[in-house]
Order: sequence, then C-alpha cells, then structure tokens
Amino acid sequence: MNRPRHGGNLLWAADVAGCSPNSILDFSASINPWGPPPSAIAAIQTHLGTLTSYPDPSYRSICQVLSKIHQLPSDWFLPGNGSAELLTWACRDLAQLSETGLLTPAFADYQRALQAFQAQLHPFALDLKAAWDLPLDDVLTLTLKRVSQSAISGLLLNSPHNPTGQLLNSQQVESLLDRFELVVIDEAFMDFVSPDGSGSLIPKVQDFPNLVILRSLTKFYSLPGLRLGYAIGHPDRLRRWQQWRDPWSVNSLAIAAGIAVLQDQAFQDQTWQWLSPARAQLWTGLKELGCYPWPSVANFLLVATDVFVPMLQEQLLKRHQILIRDCLSFPELGPHYFRVAVRTPADNQQLLTALADCLPSLSA
Amino acid sequence: MNRPRHGGNLLWAADVAGCSPNSILDFSASINPWGPPPSAIAAIQTHLGTLTSYPDPSYRSICQVLSKIHQLPSDWFLPGNGSAELLTWACRDLAQLSETGLLTPAFADYQRALQAFQAQLHPFALDLKAAWDLPLDDVLTLTLKRVSQSAISGLLLNSPHNPTGQLLNSQQVESLLDRFELVVIDEAFMDFVSPDGSGSLIPKVQDFPNLVILRSLTKFYSLPGLRLGYAIGHPDRLRRWQQWRDPWSVNSLAIAAGIAVLQDQAFQDQTWQWLSPARAQLWTGLKELGCYPWPSVANFLLVATDVFVPMLQEQLLKRHQILIRDCLSFPELGPHYFRVAVRTPADNQQLLTALADCLPSLSA
Repeated sequence: MNRPRHGGNLLWAADVAGCSPNSILDFSASINPWGPPPSAIAAIQTHLGTLTSYPDPSYRSICQVLSKIHQLPSDWFLPGNGSAELLTWACRDLAQLSETGLLTPAFADYQRALQAFQAQLHPFALDLKAAWDLPLDDVLTLTLKRVSQSAISGLLLNSPHNPTGQLLNSQQVESLLDRFELVVIDEAFMDFVSPDGSGSLIPKVQDFPNLVILRSLTKFYSLPGLRLGYAIGHPDRLRRWQQWRDPWSVNSLAIAAGIAVLQDQAFQDQTWQWLSPARAQLWTGLKELGCYPWPSVANFLLVATDVFVPMLQEQLLKRHQILIRDCLSFPELGPHYFRVAVRTPADNQQLLTALADCLPSLSA
Repeated sequence: MNRPRHGGNLLWAADVAGCSPNSILDFSASINPWGPPPSAIAAIQTHLGTLTSYPDPSYRSICQVLSKIHQLPSDWFLPGNGSAELLTWACRDLAQLSETGLLTPAFADYQRALQAFQAQLHPFALDLKAAWDLPLDDVLTLTLKRVSQSAISGLLLNSPHNPTGQLLNSQQVESLLDRFELVVIDEAFMDFVSPDGSGSLIPKVQDFPNLVILRSLTKFYSLPGLRLGYAIGHPDRLRRWQQWRDPWSVNSLAIAAGIAVLQDQAFQDQTWQWLSPARAQLWTGLKELGCYPWPSVANFLLVATDVFVPMLQEQLLKRHQILIRDCLSFPELGPHYFRVAVRTPADNQQLLTALADCLPSLSA
C-alpha cells in the first residue's frame, strides 16, 4: 500500500502496524479527541427517518443557525460537503486571476484544487531557518509583507496556518484586502483558537466582497467522516458556486449534526478548557525529549527533530500502534519534521512514552 | 417561497399544504417506497463510531463490492457524493468537446452541469406529438438516428430516460460509441428495470474508453438524503476526476450503507416483485381518470392531462397533502404534464382517489 499524502489514512497505518485500524492511536489527523459530541450522534439518530427525502437545496435551516452565530444574513453562508469541497470552488474562482499566492509549506490539497483549474501558483516560502532566531510570528509577518509587495492578484491563506499552528495577524491580512482581487482564508482550525472568535476575519466579509472564508465543522466536532464545512462570502459569489455544483451537496445527517453541535455550548467549553493545558503538556514533553516543537495556537504541533521521520513513524506504528504525521507532503519541510495532534492528557503521555522508547535508537 | 426546480422539495410543499413536511405524501421524487432497507440503517448505526476518522480516499471497500457485482476491475469505479456530483465532472469532460447532444426533455440538472463548464449544448427534442401515433420507443429510435447523423462529438444520455420512463435501445447506443468522442449515460434508474441488469451499457465500458456510466444508489435504496452514486469508466478518466475534487467526497455512512444494500438480495427481490404490478395499477387508474400516462420501464410515470397542472398540484397539496411533480422545469413539456413516482399499492390508490376528487373541477 502506498504511503498516504494526507493525515488520517488509518488503513495504511494499520497495514504497517499489523493491527486493525481501530487499534491505531491517531496523532496524524488533527481532530478533537473529545468528540463527536453526544448531541451530534443524537441528531443523526433522530434524523435517520429523513434519509428518504432529498436535502433542502437551500440548506435554510443550518444557514439560519450560522446567521445567528456569526451575526450575518443567512445568504452569506454556503454549507459544503466538508470545507474541502468549498476549497475546490474557491480555487476555481482564484484560477480566473493571473496568479495566486500561497504561503508554503501548505496543506497539500491547496495545490490539488488550484491545479484542478489550471491556476497559476506563486509560492511564498516561510523562511523556517530564520525562525530559529526570530519568533515565528515575525517570520510570518515578514512573509506577508513580501506578499503585499508582489504583483499577484489572488491569495489563498490559512489561519491558523497549517502545519505551523500560527495565527495570521488579522490587521495585516486586512491591509491586503484593499489590494488583492480575491483573498480566500481557510479558517479550518479557527474554532480551536478562542471562544470569542477573535482572530477570525469573518467580521470583515461584509466590507470586502473579495474576501471568502472557509470553515470546517468536522475538526472541532470530530466528525471528519460525515463531511461538513461552510463558506462565508458575498451572496453573489456563493450563488455562482451553487451553480457549479449539484443541488444536494451536503447530506442530511451532516446538516442535522451540524445544527446540533453549533449550539452545543457544553462541548465547546469542554474543548476550550482542555486544549491549552494539554498542548502545553505535549509541547513541554516533546521539548524534554530533545525535539523542537513550535509554538501553536491550534490543536496540533509542528515538530522538528534530528531523526529521520519516516523511520520514526514506522517504529511508532510497529512498536506502539501510534500514528504521527510525517511532513513529506510538505516538500519545504522534508524528512526531519513531523506533526502531531494534541489529544487527551493520557494519549499525549502515551505518545511521549513511545517517543522516549523510539528516539534514542534512531539518533545518530 | 419559490416553486422548486427539482422534485422532492418538501419544505415548499409543506408550506403550500399548511402541514409538516413529514405529512406530505411525496409522489414528486422517484424514490423506492420500500426503503431504506433495514440493512442500510443497521450499517449506519454500526459505523457511527467511525465518524471520527476521515473516509479512505481510495474508497477501496465499496469499489471491491462493485467490482464483484459488475464483473469489472475495481479501478473502473468511482464512488460519488450522489451521482449528481459525478454528473458535474462528466460535464466538465463533455465541455472539452465542440458540442454535447442531449435528448430533451431532460433532467434539469444536466443543463446546470453543462453550463457550469460552458459546454455547448445541442438539444435533440423527442417529438412527443408524434408519440400519440407512434410507440414512444420508435420516437426515441428516430431521435437517436438524428443524433447519429449529426456532427457533434459529445453525448449525454439517460436510460431509462427521465421523464418519459423509456429504456434506450442498447444496440443503438452501442452503435453511437464508434462515432462519438465521449458518451455519458446516466443510468440512475436502471436498477429498477430488471434483476439481471439487461439494458445497461456497463458490459461495454471495457471496450469503449469513451463511455462513462453514472449510477445512483439513493433512488432504488431510498437514501437520497445520504448521497451515494458511482461512475463506471476508464481508470484514467476516473483518476482525473479524482484530482478535480477533494479526496473525501463521499461520507463514511454512505459508504457503509452502500456496501450493505448492494448485497441485500432480499430488499432487491422485494422491490422487483412490487414494481411491475404497482406500476400497472397506477397506469390503469390514471387512464381510467382520463389522463394519458405513458408506458414506462422505470419507477415513475409521465402523464399528460387536459388540466392546468400547477393548479392541480396546488389542489392536491391543499386538499390531500399529496405532492406530484409538475413538469415546468422541462420547458418542452409545459403545464399539461406531470410526473408521479410509483409508490405502494395503498399510496397509489390514495393518489388516484385524490385525483378523482380534484380533476373534475379543473377540467374545462
């Protein structure tokens, strides 16, 4: 079986580990370990009877809930079959422009979606070597400054940035909106950052018809198998996207679960209370093992290491049935980086113990 | 609320009828009234625990089941988020060609998908007036002959044809394959035709890399809310489509239910035993009421009538909470046609009784 390009390919991992996919402790996909919320499962159960009907093509019910949460009219929202589906249409829009800027390293699917519509890609590499001396924040700021001085007209950003876990400076991004024809911001991990939503560019969409924001519901609510995300942008743009795709792109169970979890304050609180100390525990533990974890506002950590990560990944699978994310799909990073999700304190400790077992034999 | 373009918009119907969407007896969406099979619901229940993982991007498990059923290698299959999603990508391929032929009237989403990629559309109208004298079969044959003599290079067909319920002659379609650069056949309703799959062009795909077939799993198995279909075509083409869309287009519950129902022989037998007599009951009843139902091999009937259908539709909703499909989205048909699904004998009788109540007052 081929090494997967994306995180979360448990079939491949189970094959290497010689166990069932259920037995893998998965640090490769950055999914909230506390979910799915019971409210999601209950909503799915309640709505099994509705599967005999087509979904409402206007997806009115979930748009109304989103409208209340984000304080925007409901036609500024378009639910998607995962935010990944919406990325495809965003990249079709970007492909109309002369060139699209992308901070690299970047989520591999950005390139897939841009290439799908023959978009011209202009990479802006984060100078990660500089980040050993400068705060990573400053490296991002410098990179965005280079972006702002370039001649390109399209921009695909993500905040928090994957894989570095850094929040983009929203004032700095805002200043780009006057200059670029289209700015797409993937905020797939934004829910993890803060309960008050600060850091998000959503409050700016009504001022900038050239701004589109993509959000995921499956990472924070641990439902990646169900497929649910949404775009926020000018209604004209979203209506155009709807004509590009079929009328029933989001399944009814995803809609039912989405409506439930968006209003599940208890689950949201539990997640925010867990993340910060658990991330600190994992960060400190990795540091103590001689790894170089980067600061992160998200639910994952990018880690540099002296060892050859594909071998480390294999040992962790074979000896401990633990899957970490190698960074081979980020060509700028190469074989000395890995990414791990923040999981429960007990899981994090299990990873640290497993690393303590595997790292020494792999170090030069 | 606007009149819906597609069948099955229960929110609109409930609004007109002044009842809850659940109370509507829906003849507008051509969905098997016996489903979903208990095997589908059981599979969904069993797989709720897998929602915390991403679907396998290669969708290996369901492709293997399809491979056994259709006796083709598994890389000749691509699952889709409903066959509607796959139609979008098929139309992107068709848009590369000079012109795409379409038999009209046709499912409205064909035009949406072709226009989404600026395909040039060449309609071939079925001469429905001629069908009052000739068997509908012959009208189709004559139309396909005109298609074969045209100069176009792409073709989007559906068999059985929606809304007429006619099976295309497979020998005649086969003869088109030598001449056209790409022939896409939507076989969304083919499962209803016969247990042995005769009538389908699937046995020809390995001989013709320019042939793609789209199949739906949500009509026969009554799961339109879940979204599941598949394409059958040359692996090179399907791999290209996979690069156009995100890696996790089909949700995990749809895959689990699909694998279960594809092997649910008892449900399939029940459906085949029901359809033929129930369709005859409905056909005869409509005829006795002075309507003109057309012969059909599918689970729906196209019906011509002297009355103005939008008014009939409204009366049926208001007096009987029954929804029929007007044919306004088929501009070739206009306001004197409607389409009804074949439902259970009791439901069919309820429709006939309601029509007997409403038709007299609407006739001139």
